[in-house]
Amino acid sequence: MACSMGSENASKNQILSRIATSNGHGENSEYFDGWKAYNRDPYHPTNNPSGVIQMGLAENQLCFDLIKDWMVKNQQASICTHEGVHKFMEIANFQDYHGLPEFRQAVAKFMEKARGERVRFDPDRIVMSGGATGANETIMFCLADPGDAFLIPSPYYPAFYRDLGWRTGVKLIPVHCHSKNNFNITKKALESAYEDAKNNNIKVKGLIVTNPSNPLGTVLDKDTLRTLVTFTNDKRIHLVCDEIYAATVFGPPRFTSVAEVVKEMPLIDTDLVHVVYSLSKDMGMPGFRIGIIYSFNDRVVTAARRMSSFGLVSSQTQYMLAALLSDEAFVGRFLAKSRERLSSRYIHAGLKKNWNRRYHHFTSQLAQVGIRCLNSNAGLYVWMDLRRLLEEPTLEGELRLWRVIINEVKLNVSPGSSFHCSEPGWFRVCFANMDDSTLEVALQRIRSFVIRGKMDHRRTSPTPTLPTTTTTMTIKKKRGQMELRLSLTRYEEGLMRSPRGTLISPHSPIPQSPLVKART
Amino acid sequence: MACSMGSENASKNQILSRIATSNGHGENSEYFDGWKAYNRDPYHPTNNPSGVIQMGLAENQLCFDLIKDWMVKNQQASICTHEGVHKFMEIANFQDYHGLPEFRQAVAKFMEKARGERVRFDPDRIVMSGGATGANETIMFCLADPGDAFLIPSPYYPAFYRDLGWRTGVKLIPVHCHSKNNFNITKKALESAYEDAKNNNIKVKGLIVTNPSNPLGTVLDKDTLRTLVTFTNDKRIHLVCDEIYAATVFGPPRFTSVAEVVKEMPLIDTDLVHVVYSLSKDMGMPGFRIGIIYSFNDRVVTAARRMSSFGLVSSQTQYMLAALLSDEAFVGRFLAKSRERLSSRYIHAGLKKNWNRRYHHFTSQLAQVGIRCLNSNAGLYVWMDLRRLLEEPTLEGELRLWRVIINEVKLNVSPGSSFHCSEPGWFRVCFANMDDSTLEVALQRIRSFVIRGKMDHRRTSPTPTLPTTTTTMTIKKKRGQMELRLSLTRYEEGLMRSPRGTLISPHSPIPQSPLVKART
Repeated sequence: MACSMGSENASKNQILSRIATSNGHGENSEYFDGWKAYNRDPYHPTNNPSGVIQMGLAENQLCFDLIKDWMVKNQQASICTHEGVHKFMEIANFQDYHGLPEFRQAVAKFMEKARGERVRFDPDRIVMSGGATGANETIMFCLADPGDAFLIPSPYYPAFYRDLGWRTGVKLIPVHCHSKNNFNITKKALESAYEDAKNNNIKVKGLIVTNPSNPLGTVLDKDTLRTLVTFTNDKRIHLVCDEIYAATVFGPPRFTSVAEVVKEMPLIDTDLVHVVYSLSKDMGMPGFRIGIIYSFNDRVVTAARRMSSFGLVSSQTQYMLAALLSDEAFVGRFLAKSRERLSSRYIHAGLKKNWNRRYHHFTSQLAQVGIRCLNSNAGLYVWMDLRRLLEEPTLEGELRLWRVIINEVKLNVSPGSSFHCSEPGWFRVCFANMDDSTLEVALQRIRSFVIRGKMDHRRTSPTPTLPTTTTTMTIKKKRGQMELRLSLTRYEEGLMRSPRGTLISPHSPIPQSPLVKART
Repeated sequence: MACSMGSENASKNQILSRIATSNGHGENSEYFDGWKAYNRDPYHPTNNPSGVIQMGLAENQLCFDLIKDWMVKNQQASICTHEGVHKFMEIANFQDYHGLPEFRQAVAKFMEKARGERVRFDPDRIVMSGGATGANETIMFCLADPGDAFLIPSPYYPAFYRDLGWRTGVKLIPVHCHSKNNFNITKKALESAYEDAKNNNIKVKGLIVTNPSNPLGTVLDKDTLRTLVTFTNDKRIHLVCDEIYAATVFGPPRFTSVAEVVKEMPLIDTDLVHVVYSLSKDMGMPGFRIGIIYSFNDRVVTAARRMSSFGLVSSQTQYMLAALLSDEAFVGRFLAKSRERLSSRYIHAGLKKNWNRRYHHFTSQLAQVGIRCLNSNAGLYVWMDLRRLLEEPTLEGELRLWRVIINEVKLNVSPGSSFHCSEPGWFRVCFANMDDSTLEVALQRIRSFVIRGKMDHRRTSPTPTLPTTTTTMTIKKKRGQMELRLSLTRYEEGLMRSPRGTLISPHSPIPQSPLVKART
């Protein structure tokens, strides 16, 4: 049949919905453009060594060896093995939107362990949904009407625009945070955003925060959490805490869940407090689409569960994870190792451990060329400060620099503006979705870029002092834009050839890049 | 933490959304009440032999032996086996909303085979969603704005109210069909419903049909499909065909997909034609949440795919099914066996095959006591005509009879009114979600009920002629309602004790009943 692929015109517009024809999906932002650039020219150590390295993807690839070991030793945990296939019919047929009881129990237990067992989660309040993407949309459908608004501290996760607002019609009102106080959320900023909305006749139904923060990689302290709870309770609006990075906290201060805080505030109305969780980041399983809504409000639990029919977790996956997460010894070991590897890097024989701390290694290497990152202790990324490299401290300046980084330095990092950051010059850089050798290539590209940039800035031309690189770069002004040409030669080629063999994974960085991932 | 479970009041109402506090989830209907009755007192052959038998659940349990055999022989198809675990990381990380290419290809191929290979499906138009529930909601979000309407022939699937309208705000306008022409959809009825809507200032955006029909179990013939395509094209509105029962057609006439019809109508605008599919019924895997949107409209494909982020299929499940459905020999065998078993019953050693035809056996046994069903050739249910048993031909009369069937006869069948049938006295009765012995108990209960009802009707009291039953029943009038008391004695107890052993599955009918299934 003849199909007019790609044809778009006004009359066709009218036959679709306003939602379908709107830009609420958010894919026209720089955040997704970066992914597309990576997709067109993905780095591979041997097949495409000058390709774009994907540093826009908050994926956790560091602990799969532990899960694989467990799977091999627990074949009965799957309905697709000799040992577990007798359960196939029962599980394939299982579609109760409450979920498998053992899955809910195991998830509640895992949530407790990921929060240091300082708080209990009731399995009967665990509501499934299709990833955190689905969980966040569902909680909005439960709490707000089209046109209502949620406050959200900026910088915030770019795809919230889609997740929270596209189909629900809910508006997001940024609460601007600033570098001068490390992007802390202040009561003053909250009040100001709330009052502004009110003055514009916008009904604010709640506040949503990510804790640990995406993109900052920081955790909210107890005092701040108390402020948020009190602020929202006073206003009779909701507080939604997206805690999907809870178990990625790899250094002090420790993570505090809002559930822990409300436990210590007996006078507050917990009907206004809700948690979103997921196994995509903490377990590194975004493909399994496990989103969780945990509400202290019974009516929200009921409504969200009814809505979960639109995005239940596959019962095959529920069944397998119920077994995995019920193994307390495994979970304890996994969480400890995961934290260790996020700060230290994936262990390879023959390499000194101290040299290999992933977060510390990455940030200290950046520091050596004068690049500072926000002090952080969580997440799968750093919040990199390139303000001093901007030609001008504006959005345009940031995007110009970003285009150079994407197109010339060949790193897909995400510009702060896509996170709605009010200060130009910040970039989110992911570091857990690749192997060590790819990370080294990325670091080398950044070092070369900065050193050359400095050379240009100082209008001097000393020979680069890094002994391992012969990278050359030319910078010229053209039609008002800075252009950087980067020729990568021996240093990187050497790495790509992998003299150490084991350093390069055949699947590096990931075998097939998604054009647009469901949640990053 | 103290939580005020179940408290509801007006002020709390206000803090939630209109959607969350509406009845759009549809769970307050008789359809779901029947499930709740089953849930309170589920039949079990030995543990609860006088419990409610679940005949409200359109589940396909007849071919799991084939799938299990395949799984055991194809251990590499799962990432949780020794043989497949090397793929674990890649698959757990895979969250591209396009889906695994091999999954899309395999699903497209399966859709072709389920439609007799008379039509091709393009894998690039396969969009995933969370079951048919998610698929139907997604297509509405793509095609219609809140307040817009879709025409829908009645009787229709009760949960469409939730799936199509709850969160989208789309209205459903029934196109009433009648028993006098076997509930066929006529152009006259379509035009009339369309004009009525127009006169009421309701914008009709499309027509949605189930083919094969749920609850009728009939298929649309080519002429009717052409009428639907022409009608919708003429009006410039959409046609959505929900074909989730495509492979359950167990007798002539054969199934015709709308895809086959539009192929033969070169002048129509295929941008207005969309198919919804699922593996929940045809493969009997509702737990795996595989919903498919297949649209001939590129912009709908794009928008639906973006929306699929809210309900992607677990990559673990995609991977396994990609392998299963790519095995053409298996698929051919499975589809043939499935059809055979839907009309013939699950084969047990030592029982004569001819006696065991499930659909024919069920309907012919009903016919012996004078109960007629609509002639059908598809689905997992029959549309049973109990009009002559109504005390009065009204909705109230139907619900009164239904309550007797649920509470006294102890069968959860679904009343026609929950399917928005305009004629009282029809009931949907599912027959593929239980083993043979349970089906026999159900049949025996129906027989006893009808015979006793006849006795009462004739005001005579002959001894029941069925040799195998000693069921006794008393009927008395009380406060204007007919009450039937049924005492089950030896016949059923004999069956429950299972002298033939193998007839009774330890999992009969299903081990844990869902309170509310996602889709039936």
